[in-house]
Amino acid sequence: MVLVANELTHYMGSFGPQEDWLDYRASQYARERNIPRIYISVNSGARIGVAEEVKSEFQVAWLDPARPERGFKYIYLSPEAYSQLSPMGSVKAELIEDEGEARYKITDIIGKEDGLGVECLRDAGLIAGETAQAYEDIVTISIVTCRAIGIGSYVVRLGHRVVQVESSYIILTGHAALNKVLGRAVYASNNQLGGVQVMHNNGVTHAVATTDLDAVRTVVNWLQFVPKDKLSMVPIMRSSDPISRPVEWVPPRAPHDPRLMLTGEPGRPGFVDAGSFDEIMKPWAQTVIAGRARLGGIPIGIIAVETRTVELTQPADPANLDSECKTVQQAGQVWFPDSAYKTSEAINDFSREGLPIIIFANWRGFSGGQKDMYEQILKFGAEIVRSLRGARAPVLVYIPPGAELRGGAWAVVDPSVHSARMEMYADNDARGGVLEPEAIVVVKYKEKDLLKTMHRMDQELMRLSARITELKEQMKVISKNLDRRGSIDDVLIKTDVGKQGE
Amino acid sequence: MVLVANELTHYMGSFGPQEDWLDYRASQYARERNIPRIYISVNSGARIGVAEEVKSEFQVAWLDPARPERGFKYIYLSPEAYSQLSPMGSVKAELIEDEGEARYKITDIIGKEDGLGVECLRDAGLIAGETAQAYEDIVTISIVTCRAIGIGSYVVRLGHRVVQVESSYIILTGHAALNKVLGRAVYASNNQLGGVQVMHNNGVTHAVATTDLDAVRTVVNWLQFVPKDKLSMVPIMRSSDPISRPVEWVPPRAPHDPRLMLTGEPGRPGFVDAGSFDEIMKPWAQTVIAGRARLGGIPIGIIAVETRTVELTQPADPANLDSECKTVQQAGQVWFPDSAYKTSEAINDFSREGLPIIIFANWRGFSGGQKDMYEQILKFGAEIVRSLRGARAPVLVYIPPGAELRGGAWAVVDPSVHSARMEMYADNDARGGVLEPEAIVVVKYKEKDLLKTMHRMDQELMRLSARITELKEQMKVISKNLDRRGSIDDVLIKTDVGKQGE
Repeated sequence: MVLVANELTHYMGSFGPQEDWLDYRASQYARERNIPRIYISVNSGARIGVAEEVKSEFQVAWLDPARPERGFKYIYLSPEAYSQLSPMGSVKAELIEDEGEARYKITDIIGKEDGLGVECLRDAGLIAGETAQAYEDIVTISIVTCRAIGIGSYVVRLGHRVVQVESSYIILTGHAALNKVLGRAVYASNNQLGGVQVMHNNGVTHAVATTDLDAVRTVVNWLQFVPKDKLSMVPIMRSSDPISRPVEWVPPRAPHDPRLMLTGEPGRPGFVDAGSFDEIMKPWAQTVIAGRARLGGIPIGIIAVETRTVELTQPADPANLDSECKTVQQAGQVWFPDSAYKTSEAINDFSREGLPIIIFANWRGFSGGQKDMYEQILKFGAEIVRSLRGARAPVLVYIPPGAELRGGAWAVVDPSVHSARMEMYADNDARGGVLEPEAIVVVKYKEKDLLKTMHRMDQELMRLSARITELKEQMKVISKNLDRRGSIDDVLIKTDVGKQGE
Repeated sequence: MVLVANELTHYMGSFGPQEDWLDYRASQYARERNIPRIYISVNSGARIGVAEEVKSEFQVAWLDPARPERGFKYIYLSPEAYSQLSPMGSVKAELIEDEGEARYKITDIIGKEDGLGVECLRDAGLIAGETAQAYEDIVTISIVTCRAIGIGSYVVRLGHRVVQVESSYIILTGHAALNKVLGRAVYASNNQLGGVQVMHNNGVTHAVATTDLDAVRTVVNWLQFVPKDKLSMVPIMRSSDPISRPVEWVPPRAPHDPRLMLTGEPGRPGFVDAGSFDEIMKPWAQTVIAGRARLGGIPIGIIAVETRTVELTQPADPANLDSECKTVQQAGQVWFPDSAYKTSEAINDFSREGLPIIIFANWRGFSGGQKDMYEQILKFGAEIVRSLRGARAPVLVYIPPGAELRGGAWAVVDPSVHSARMEMYADNDARGGVLEPEAIVVVKYKEKDLLKTMHRMDQELMRLSARITELKEQMKVISKNLDRRGSIDDVLIKTDVGKQGE
């Protein structure tokens, strides 16, 4: 594997052109060899430089030299300073005559050193583009310790698999700069902006570590799941948990923790090898569960479905005094915009690692209420199809005992989405269909159908029906007699109905 | 081009296996020939069937035949009915003896017809996967008129370019079914769930049409921008707007409508050919503007930046009585999670059409406050890099007069993200840098630097400095004398300071 790290003691670990090119070359080296790229992020974002040699020499032409607060006309260099700086290519200036002396009015400051200005951004683009490609080609993992800022945060995110040390933060702009823009002290720390309580909850951070050592341990654990290079098989380990043992944990009908189906409980072993399940992105989009595990020693990616209702707490926006912390409930077995997004992200990650994926499908459908339609459930649901269509590893869809798969949820994970890679299995006690029974009855067993069935089956109704038919027959006879006699009054009295009427 | 449409008068335009396979084959036909695929969506989602032949024959074994409300043991067929249905493969049943008669207890209902149940979902997966691939390979455009439901909505979204007729809706679940789940009449119509005010505002719908004819006109207009097949050049038209004419509309310093830079105003022609600009996804993520246009007759994709502050109204959730309609402000020249997403979506769409893309870059950066960090700005910002990295057509980044490009915003659109496809240009009056001047001064021109510059430049300060140096010199002399004489009191009186002190 290739290990890239920032050095915080050198220019605060900022990315200048040289750092960018080193990072770029290291990443290319990893891609050429198809091996994992691990990045330890301790950076301060793109380097910010100023041309110190100009800073110490420039002069200001004030509008009114006695009243500098009135502003200035231009900045300039004395002929002596210009003759010193010009050969270094540090400035561009034009010679003028003003206030009775020759001056070099500064038009451009370039700086004698490379990497003072947008060069840092140009090469930040270089590593951003390279990392986007690396995510496609090899296994990219990042540890964030201390901090990641700006381009540092983007490189971390572009590599997807992020372990964040608890005390660190992943930000774009520092809290002091934001307070300046907002005009008041809204934020007290950078952790408010990009600490684990933000980044783990929104799925940018896949796992949290309490210490650096703990973070390294997580990465080593993840590496055990992936091939040593992209051309190799996933590493199959001899498992101490025998392949031949039965899966004894059976999901109950009631809402339950589906992790137990995977891990089992003492005395009732679960689906995967004991102790091998490693969950990622846990606090984000909790109606879907994603993680890696081993099955008979073979590494697999897992997607499972929460059956219990979960609470999602959206924090208040400190920058908006009107906003409040909100808690919304998300039903189990339902795909919401966030959990649909999480599903596609997990498939993308596992698939690029070459891990076979097992989807323990148990969805009643997508949440189609106004809020979730507005929040782009269609886009994120479609992303699931896209990620499966792009899957490079086998994807097994399995409907476990007691689970169900309905309508749109079935359509997006059906093997025909990508038949070269996908297969589907179902337990005998699993259920599937376009609609749930309650809903299909409304559509396909309407009142007239119900009445028909009742009349076909219910003894009492059948007796009454027979009686009605009989009466109708009698009525017909009466009508015939009536036609003959010309008056109805005499006749009615003779029928049953007539007698009851008396 | 290939045109696919639903037929609403046949099974309500629902997708059964046959419809799915026709759609699939038509899409493959289009992909084989690399030609655009147009889909007119008027559907009712996956077909829902029941085995009518079983529905009219089954019997119920009640727990208590006199009290059917107590429930039932099983459903069954009489031997006569079974002998009729069994040869059709309609049911599976087991022969039992109960209540003194021979019965065929039903274990499985299959139905004599194909496509009654999950077959419809299986083949819905087929067209979902096919459409995901078609979006990658060819130009996919959909018109939604009347309605799109379930898989119909997913096929529409998977094709990305959507024209929605105003009265139509794009939904996953009907409002009646949702009301049933919610236990009260929350929704009054399907338009509340997937009408244009939902789907155009969240970017699923790219353009709205008032009538079917209007929708067709929009599609024909879009087709004028794309090559006749993927192997051909974009269609270059002779433009009545001469290539040699100058761009006379110059962006003012103040916030303005950047569309005018593209289209111009009467008497001041803009950047693109007169009358050629066609905006998409207009009400969604309004801090970024996306559309197609012609430049000297050449079709291009355009991404531009709103400079004015926009208001974003998030509707209340009808299903949650505690929720309220909220309006938040989004500053111009800043990337928010929604506008970053819109940017990457537009790049993906244009790039797959083979259109050269011009990005009129004018961003101060990404919004890095807590709310936007929590709302995954890092993910959507990273998507911009991914979309540029995957661009198949040339991407020109241009910083217009008076515009600026800073920090992270520069990094994600720098040509080094994908140097084989990207180039960058800037107007002489454009600005760029890691930070804005106000911010860089805070970081790189701290108080001690300011003091140093002031002492170097300000006449008064220089005079005082000289005086201080002089005094220090005198003090040194005094100290020396003091050392010699052993007492300070006699000496002080002789210095200037001492005299002033008297």
